[in-house]
Amino acid sequence: MLACAPPPPRRSTIPDVTIVITSFLEPEHVRRIAATGADVRVLYDPELVAPPRFAGDHSGRPGFRRTPDQEARYRGWLAEADVHFDLDAEFAPAFPALAPRLRWIQATSSGIGPLVRRTGLDRSGVTITNAAGIHAVPLAEHALLALLYFVKAVPARLRDQRAHVWERHSVRELRGLTATVVGLGAVGLEVARTLRSVGVHVIGVRRSALAADEAARVDEATTPDHLRDVLPRSDALVLIAPHTRETEGMIGATELALLPPGAIVVNIARGALIDEVALIDALRRGHLGGAALDVAAVEPLPSDSPLWDLPNVLITPHSAATVARENERLTDLFVENLRRYRSGEPLLNLLRL
Amino acid sequence: MLACAPPPPRRSTIPDVTIVITSFLEPEHVRRIAATGADVRVLYDPELVAPPRFAGDHSGRPGFRRTPDQEARYRGWLAEADVHFDLDAEFAPAFPALAPRLRWIQATSSGIGPLVRRTGLDRSGVTITNAAGIHAVPLAEHALLALLYFVKAVPARLRDQRAHVWERHSVRELRGLTATVVGLGAVGLEVARTLRSVGVHVIGVRRSALAADEAARVDEATTPDHLRDVLPRSDALVLIAPHTRETEGMIGATELALLPPGAIVVNIARGALIDEVALIDALRRGHLGGAALDVAAVEPLPSDSPLWDLPNVLITPHSAATVARENERLTDLFVENLRRYRSGEPLLNLLRL
Repeated sequence: MLACAPPPPRRSTIPDVTIVITSFLEPEHVRRIAATGADVRVLYDPELVAPPRFAGDHSGRPGFRRTPDQEARYRGWLAEADVHFDLDAEFAPAFPALAPRLRWIQATSSGIGPLVRRTGLDRSGVTITNAAGIHAVPLAEHALLALLYFVKAVPARLRDQRAHVWERHSVRELRGLTATVVGLGAVGLEVARTLRSVGVHVIGVRRSALAADEAARVDEATTPDHLRDVLPRSDALVLIAPHTRETEGMIGATELALLPPGAIVVNIARGALIDEVALIDALRRGHLGGAALDVAAVEPLPSDSPLWDLPNVLITPHSAATVARENERLTDLFVENLRRYRSGEPLLNLLRL
Repeated sequence: MLACAPPPPRRSTIPDVTIVITSFLEPEHVRRIAATGADVRVLYDPELVAPPRFAGDHSGRPGFRRTPDQEARYRGWLAEADVHFDLDAEFAPAFPALAPRLRWIQATSSGIGPLVRRTGLDRSGVTITNAAGIHAVPLAEHALLALLYFVKAVPARLRDQRAHVWERHSVRELRGLTATVVGLGAVGLEVARTLRSVGVHVIGVRRSALAADEAARVDEATTPDHLRDVLPRSDALVLIAPHTRETEGMIGATELALLPPGAIVVNIARGALIDEVALIDALRRGHLGGAALDVAAVEPLPSDSPLWDLPNVLITPHSAATVARENERLTDLFVENLRRYRSGEPLLNLLRL
């Protein structure tokens, strides 16, 4: 256990702060947080959180249960903490009662809007910051992989390889293709930068106006109400917009039909953005060249979903964002935000509610 | 048939030139060449060359044979031509007798050194230009695909997908890895540019000294005799050097063992550069993270090669360079070189013999 509560050596003008870490974090990162100030109190015990299944796993092994004693300790910590590092989805609906001192939650994910609304945290007055940007590079790399995977016809190559068939062919080039990126937050802008660096023409789609430095990071920009105008010339469609009432189901049969034959769809946002039945239909009819899906309408993707066996589908189980160094970067963000929180400066990645 | 021999309307200072095209070329490209001058004579008939199996195929369907009449016409053309567009490997050993007027061959491939030496063309006095650079972008894209394919553990994802298993995991990042690129010609420099644009640290390896503008396109540079020094920190090794006496077998068991565990090998050069038995051994032992092979020691790769079934091997049948627009680009190069040839300027892509 690593519950550090050194008696403050002298009164400081910076108020004491008590932080509870609600998902697994490596000891070195816990120590870094504790070391940010003598009056910082970190409440964390790996036994009280679900064990991670992989580096950077914040959900932990399903079915994890605390013993009654562990549960009492954990609830005691929630009651004492001013700050939560990670958003505990199980207890969040009861936070006004369970966590009366709570002022700020640093989430470890970016797409937390629906969860925050569902649990009523959006009306609780608690400040919430998300992990936007932490996942920008791995998600952009994933989008690049997905485009190359289908542009270079890897599924056909693997079929030939399994059959020991050496048959020459010509390949397509990524350079010169057009990709429409829906959602231009930190991740979308990094996707745009990455694709443009290899010669892809990028059309960015965002509801809100782009600042000049953001506009310079895409070749063209438009708003969601003009999405249908740009789809016919989009060799690829990359979704990285948040899941909101406006984006839910934004890609349906009509939008998919507007894409040119052979187009590639990459979803690194949320499954709810696409009408999955229409997507399966467009893939089955051969209208789409491929779909790379890191998310699904229902997760885990049900075992009987036709998506598993479609030849031009690449499924990655909501993992494209999670890199081995995830917790190191999250800790970097949290430590900087903690400094800002204590000195009254604006926090990074403030969730707009 | 498209054999254009208009009587020259008036004497010009530019000499007549007769060109034979020795592999399949689309009519629009043949017309472009014929249109470069009224005194340019283009000898081409698609019936006299092997039919292509895919766009940009210059070898054509195996087993193609001309009728005796076709053969006589084709040999007549070889005898008349000053310039060959594509190097006819079958007839090349007899060129001094068969093609007495031949002054220049524009090849459609880059790695033609061994063929030129084997056929004695290197001692014939004929000028030979290769297709270097034509394939730079597709090969660089292939190297990028290969790195992402293994860094993102696509083989493991496809295994899970076939089993309908949704199991989250963390992924590696390409950004920050180190790739050693052996061979820094037009293609190697484009590979370096592409990998650096996504944050890969690139070590370039070349025998000859780099010009300042070339040196600026890699993070570090070294010579083949220092290759072993850089292998231990090479997360990826990309081979794109020509096949020469010096490069043959340059990557053997010792070099592979010097790579860090999990390293990725990409061969877009020639199979002979790697000791294939040592490569298979390093893959089987799990020392290497993966190998993307566009070439093999023997091509087509024999059906009983263990490489086909190794889980961490991606085989592309000598096709990564060939894009659908290949012949358009080759024609661009040829038309420019033809202009230079006729005006006595130095040709592009001159093969150093």
